[in-house]
Amino acid sequence: MVLIPEVSKLSRSAFRRLGMTPPKAPDAPPARLSLISRHLAPVYPINTPYAVERLPSTIDTSLLPKNQTRQLTTTTPKMSQPAHPTLLIPGPIEFDDAVLQSMSHFSESHVSAGFVATFGETLSMLRKLFQTTDPASQPFVLSGSGTLGWDLVAANLIEAGEDVLVLGTGYFSDGFADCLRVYGANVTELKAPVGTKPTLLEIEKALSEKKYKAITITHVDTSTGVLSELKNLSALVHKVSPDTLIIVDGVCSVACEEIDFDTWGLDGVVTASQKAIGCPAGLSISMFSGRAMKAFENRKTPASAYFASMKNWTPIMQNYEAKKPSYFATPSPQLVHALHTALSQILAKPVAERFAGHKAASDKIKAAIATLGLKQVAANPNEQAHGMTAIYLPEGVKGAELLPILAKKGVVFAGGIHKEIITKYIRFGHMGVSVLDPARGDIERAVKALEEGLAELGYTKP
Amino acid sequence: MVLIPEVSKLSRSAFRRLGMTPPKAPDAPPARLSLISRHLAPVYPINTPYAVERLPSTIDTSLLPKNQTRQLTTTTPKMSQPAHPTLLIPGPIEFDDAVLQSMSHFSESHVSAGFVATFGETLSMLRKLFQTTDPASQPFVLSGSGTLGWDLVAANLIEAGEDVLVLGTGYFSDGFADCLRVYGANVTELKAPVGTKPTLLEIEKALSEKKYKAITITHVDTSTGVLSELKNLSALVHKVSPDTLIIVDGVCSVACEEIDFDTWGLDGVVTASQKAIGCPAGLSISMFSGRAMKAFENRKTPASAYFASMKNWTPIMQNYEAKKPSYFATPSPQLVHALHTALSQILAKPVAERFAGHKAASDKIKAAIATLGLKQVAANPNEQAHGMTAIYLPEGVKGAELLPILAKKGVVFAGGIHKEIITKYIRFGHMGVSVLDPARGDIERAVKALEEGLAELGYTKP
Repeated sequence: MVLIPEVSKLSRSAFRRLGMTPPKAPDAPPARLSLISRHLAPVYPINTPYAVERLPSTIDTSLLPKNQTRQLTTTTPKMSQPAHPTLLIPGPIEFDDAVLQSMSHFSESHVSAGFVATFGETLSMLRKLFQTTDPASQPFVLSGSGTLGWDLVAANLIEAGEDVLVLGTGYFSDGFADCLRVYGANVTELKAPVGTKPTLLEIEKALSEKKYKAITITHVDTSTGVLSELKNLSALVHKVSPDTLIIVDGVCSVACEEIDFDTWGLDGVVTASQKAIGCPAGLSISMFSGRAMKAFENRKTPASAYFASMKNWTPIMQNYEAKKPSYFATPSPQLVHALHTALSQILAKPVAERFAGHKAASDKIKAAIATLGLKQVAANPNEQAHGMTAIYLPEGVKGAELLPILAKKGVVFAGGIHKEIITKYIRFGHMGVSVLDPARGDIERAVKALEEGLAELGYTKP
Repeated sequence: MVLIPEVSKLSRSAFRRLGMTPPKAPDAPPARLSLISRHLAPVYPINTPYAVERLPSTIDTSLLPKNQTRQLTTTTPKMSQPAHPTLLIPGPIEFDDAVLQSMSHFSESHVSAGFVATFGETLSMLRKLFQTTDPASQPFVLSGSGTLGWDLVAANLIEAGEDVLVLGTGYFSDGFADCLRVYGANVTELKAPVGTKPTLLEIEKALSEKKYKAITITHVDTSTGVLSELKNLSALVHKVSPDTLIIVDGVCSVACEEIDFDTWGLDGVVTASQKAIGCPAGLSISMFSGRAMKAFENRKTPASAYFASMKNWTPIMQNYEAKKPSYFATPSPQLVHALHTALSQILAKPVAERFAGHKAASDKIKAAIATLGLKQVAANPNEQAHGMTAIYLPEGVKGAELLPILAKKGVVFAGGIHKEIITKYIRFGHMGVSVLDPARGDIERAVKALEEGLAELGYTKP
């Protein structure tokens, strides 16, 4: 039997051979349509026949979208999320209907052509989000919590006994340091007082005292809302310690704070799905530079993890991005679909607009906090994150009393997590749809609830 | 202000104090209703104020359901999965509508009382699925692929230089051995020819030659469909090498093959969500015995992983199960909701019925395969898995030709993966709703498609 492909399945060159005009390029129609058509394809792709090898493969960049001009539908499909309190913690955040709907995608093989295309596009879209066009940059999307990104760095880029400088900004930089130590790194923590970050002068001094394999920066420490500045910091590291890898924990910053991966010369940014990217938790997402990948390839000792091993995952990520089925461990098709939807929405507009939108909302929130007479944990306006605000409670107000009152008003804030001040503050997350879709009114409702809640507990604003 | 709880929120003792009859116990009403009521609760739980400590905590077993008598609704909510080819690979499998719908759950804080209850119930339900009532047994549910379970064993239970006996049944036992070596184990592989498993005699001999810290058994090697027998094997290990931990890779067996954790004296079973449990991929699920947990606690060297560290996760799992909020890394609320739904469905009937249902379907499939004149990779009927069948292709038929034909008929099978026979066979997964809901007709359709597809490629059955 000869399989006769339907006209819709003919390749562009086949159209030309037949003297016909091929339809527009595959990525020209709206992404939604392309997704649907993929499901309706009359000939289903085979499921991993013999393409399960783990051999490294050079990525065929001709397959990558040269100029991603996705036209995305802005109308979300009908789906009603049941009434629920608005989640305004620093992640997970509120999710868009279309993203949540993608979580219910019917079951697909993780090596089917349809899913491979979805995963491949997702990886390519991450390059846009991180603003890297260097083909040597390598994105990873793994099943796991954001924390897994620390293991990825610690187990692959650092060898036992190598020195790492950790900029200490709070609970999460402490965690990164712990993780690095588990894998044998010799960690130096340059700690700043609660609510601040190490200065460039202090960092320059530290870098001049020892040769560090890597420096880690927690871009936004979710425990304090302190924002680290990456541009000048990266320039400094490149100047005074050019061999040091610049590794960023971007869990609470990717997709809400500017990150210009190539221009700033970053070597690694690790993040998670459930914060400003706006996809449910369950994915560790990261980007590494060609220089970081070289550091991994040039290790003298084998990487000291298996599931978190770049050796195991790099060929798989490269194959997926080249639209080739590949297998090391089963990814989560549903979460990857949701990430694809979230990234498609994000990239429908220039990322700079997204960062500006978060900054505008943050400025408004911080002004409202000040009007209420409240102080932030991050006192210096230049060190304040744009996707969250850590707010000191007024004297006499307990978080354990305030948070349930806010929740009753339909707004969920987070308690403290930094051990030195844990009972003294609360955290307000403002990322994604809650700030970019003003029609939701999430922020106004939250500020109003905070004002009313404090009043109910006897607080009078100055 | 005094918060006056609504009547529906009164505790059972408060009802009694008021001279009223309390409603039925919280777990008496249908689980679905309990889930809904939780979302409608007028007073929302606070979000982690100060309960984020990672300190070990003894589990308060008084909070565990003593006798889980869930009455579960069997009618699934209205949700139409779009038409799609039936996925009959050995995982991911086809998912129930209600499970997929749980994947779209609105965003919840990972430390809210509602989600903590869902996660806690999920962990308690796993005890039922694994058939363990020993309070020392410890379940884990982590974001990750099934492969992460290997890291959990290798990084926590084994110390560098310790001996592990790996029963070699194919691709997946090789993977487990690789993972163990990465973490420094001294691995001995007892390999069996393709399509078989090591005999008890060979295992007894191996155990008598060296003192092994652990033995690993791939219960069903997804690369060959070979089923290992656990009951007699465990009895043997307990007899000839009583200190050896018995570790089972149950990725393709949990929820479709009998596993009697306590009675057989198993020490660890690691699995994934997307196979017979019937929940989308993205969760590493495991159960360890009190003896395994002791082996971890008595390590001389610290565990050599961070995200896969039992030290980091054990208190978190114990806190969740005791319905206390706790944080190490953000779990995936949506995946955990889906797992909760899947486990609720599974436990609505005795697990023995579930195993029998898979066996009956498997017997039927294997008879049909034989009628077609086809041979299985696992030739011995006693060594054939009940959730999948690995089928040798007839002479002259290529998987790369057959699989697309089957897919066109709406049935997705998997290609080969065992390197010695990779092009010579295909794999047919038959787990979960596809076998337990005969109204779907999945199996009949698959067998018919296989017969027709082979005929189209010129094969005539004997």
